[in-house]
Amino acid sequence: MSEPTTAPTRDEIFAAHEGGKLEIVLSSPIESKRDLSIAYTPGVAEVCRAIHDDASVARTHTWASRLVAVVSDGTAVLGLGDIGPAASLPVMEGKSALFKRFAGLDSIPLVLDTTDVDEIVETLVRLQHSFGAVNLEDISAPRCFEVEAKVIEALDMPVMHDDQHGTAVVVLAALTNAAKIVGRELSSLKVVIAGAGAAGLAVGEMLLAVGIEDVIVLDSRGTLTTHRVDLHDAKASFAARSNPRSIEGGPAQALEGADVFIGVSSSKVDESLLAKMSDDAMIFALSNPDPEVQPEVARKYAKVVATGRSDFPNQINNVLAFPGIFRGALDAGARRITQEMKVAAANAIAELVGDELSVDYIVPSPLDERVAGAVAAAVAKASQAS
Amino acid sequence: MSEPTTAPTRDEIFAAHEGGKLEIVLSSPIESKRDLSIAYTPGVAEVCRAIHDDASVARTHTWASRLVAVVSDGTAVLGLGDIGPAASLPVMEGKSALFKRFAGLDSIPLVLDTTDVDEIVETLVRLQHSFGAVNLEDISAPRCFEVEAKVIEALDMPVMHDDQHGTAVVVLAALTNAAKIVGRELSSLKVVIAGAGAAGLAVGEMLLAVGIEDVIVLDSRGTLTTHRVDLHDAKASFAARSNPRSIEGGPAQALEGADVFIGVSSSKVDESLLAKMSDDAMIFALSNPDPEVQPEVARKYAKVVATGRSDFPNQINNVLAFPGIFRGALDAGARRITQEMKVAAANAIAELVGDELSVDYIVPSPLDERVAGAVAAAVAKASQAS
Repeated sequence: MSEPTTAPTRDEIFAAHEGGKLEIVLSSPIESKRDLSIAYTPGVAEVCRAIHDDASVARTHTWASRLVAVVSDGTAVLGLGDIGPAASLPVMEGKSALFKRFAGLDSIPLVLDTTDVDEIVETLVRLQHSFGAVNLEDISAPRCFEVEAKVIEALDMPVMHDDQHGTAVVVLAALTNAAKIVGRELSSLKVVIAGAGAAGLAVGEMLLAVGIEDVIVLDSRGTLTTHRVDLHDAKASFAARSNPRSIEGGPAQALEGADVFIGVSSSKVDESLLAKMSDDAMIFALSNPDPEVQPEVARKYAKVVATGRSDFPNQINNVLAFPGIFRGALDAGARRITQEMKVAAANAIAELVGDELSVDYIVPSPLDERVAGAVAAAVAKASQAS
Repeated sequence: MSEPTTAPTRDEIFAAHEGGKLEIVLSSPIESKRDLSIAYTPGVAEVCRAIHDDASVARTHTWASRLVAVVSDGTAVLGLGDIGPAASLPVMEGKSALFKRFAGLDSIPLVLDTTDVDEIVETLVRLQHSFGAVNLEDISAPRCFEVEAKVIEALDMPVMHDDQHGTAVVVLAALTNAAKIVGRELSSLKVVIAGAGAAGLAVGEMLLAVGIEDVIVLDSRGTLTTHRVDLHDAKASFAARSNPRSIEGGPAQALEGADVFIGVSSSKVDESLLAKMSDDAMIFALSNPDPEVQPEVARKYAKVVATGRSDFPNQINNVLAFPGIFRGALDAGARRITQEMKVAAANAIAELVGDELSVDYIVPSPLDERVAGAVAAAVAKASQAS
């Protein structure tokens, strides 16, 4: 496929979004009175009665059980911040478009005019028979941690905050392959994560889950340690389980001898600090559109460099993960998206690179048609195993 | 089009509903990295920012402003009653399918796991930036009156409880044409409505709105009069503005000399009572699937007979009204669906019958492709005039 190198113009973007990005179509045509009497009254009553008698019929004879609700309160949208529900809707429509495009999953965007955690949970509980899974999106930290935990608890269906776990899955896939290139065991790596928001803490949790012990997370005030008294619950919990060398200070202290830098903070990192990293370092500068460090600079200090951008090699893009994760969870009839399922997703993504692995190719392209199916299969298998 | 005369089998119905009746599709394809960067990050941020700066951009650049939420709590579903939200979903999917099929409107079914009026309203307020109109459906009376009134008050968009007003619009269209056949002015008619639920009271209100004064509504205990002390607010309000001859009693008293019988009650009416109606009577026995009186019996006492069934002439079917009403309201940018807009819809439906008017053809077929467009145009015009 040919890829023009010019960035899309504003006019081009607005033309593509005019009227929205989604449409509803009918699964079966309605052309005759007979069709009408099947799709609607009186025929539909048979299906209603069957569901009333046996709830499992809703799984096979409505669209809900394979429908993903893409839910946001618009408080942490892309790099734009708290722009509210109405302005966040184009992102949620886009997410729904990607669910369909890559995993064949139907999906509806729901933007919420409340930022109260319990009201968000309550709203989704009231709507729960309308869909079969929830993709939480662009909810600000630390509320996002509480929202996700409470929605998971309240609903008997797959729920995932993609800004946390989608990112974490693709980072783990990329890191798995980057470590192969430099010939290191994942568990031996010293990792510094700059940014303690949704993505930063979820990436940290994921790395701990696969046995990496030396993980240090930095927020704007420095490393997360058990001595900090200014940490909210999610940060404090993470501090207690990470930073085993108890490094105090800022990026300078954390990066001394580190093998991996993962930037999810939107703040710049000084070149002189990257110079302190170990030989064969790996730098993932993921902030978009402005990476923490430009790739050409990063390459001076690192063997493997990744960004969040499509115009550089090694794009860490959530679209590699979320369509297949939800597809796999729904295929398996999973009630939860577990850490094992996420790790399985990361491994499936990493494995697709195969023999073509190189410093400029550690993750598949977001358009690689194999990805969602492979992720879905791995996630479904992991779900059934647990 | 050929119309098989056999009723659909259960197997045929279940096959048609398997996997649900709706699908999401993308308005524009995503094939290249460039497409991806337009539909999603980073391009989508331009659209988000534009909406944040100017809320009106949401009307043109998201799907929400032309999206109808089909909302039910599952308390009064078809003839099945209170079967709950999960079992009601096939009806709501069917409704969404009809919105698309007849008016080209996208629509999402939302079934609510609460029957509390204020919680229903609150939920829709929280979701209000996700859609552009609300079709309330299958909510039991008298809660439906309060739900509709409160949702209209709370949301700045078209809201209509179709079981009330869709039915009322089509009944008015049918009655307008039936009155032409018997050479009567609408305003001179004596009308009896059997059933004081959502449809009965809405039909009554509609007939009052077009100048019919002698309207009597019956509930299971008899005629609604100002002397009744057992009436909820909606019935009491209607009693105070109807039944000008203060007829007390039941169907026997009400039908004495009546010109029009409209059944929306599911209870049978005795043939001997219909015999007391005036010459050239009109009988609309609308309960489904079992009319209040079989058409062949009704014809003995009435010049014009209508039912809710597709296998008899003159089917009173809401699908003649709701797609065009919502389409017209959204086309006009209306904030409310007024009584004038509903009357305009009824007149548009009646007029389409034109010179073909006969005792067996007082309303167009539900599959008449002209209807939704004509209704939408009339509704939009009425909206702009008011």
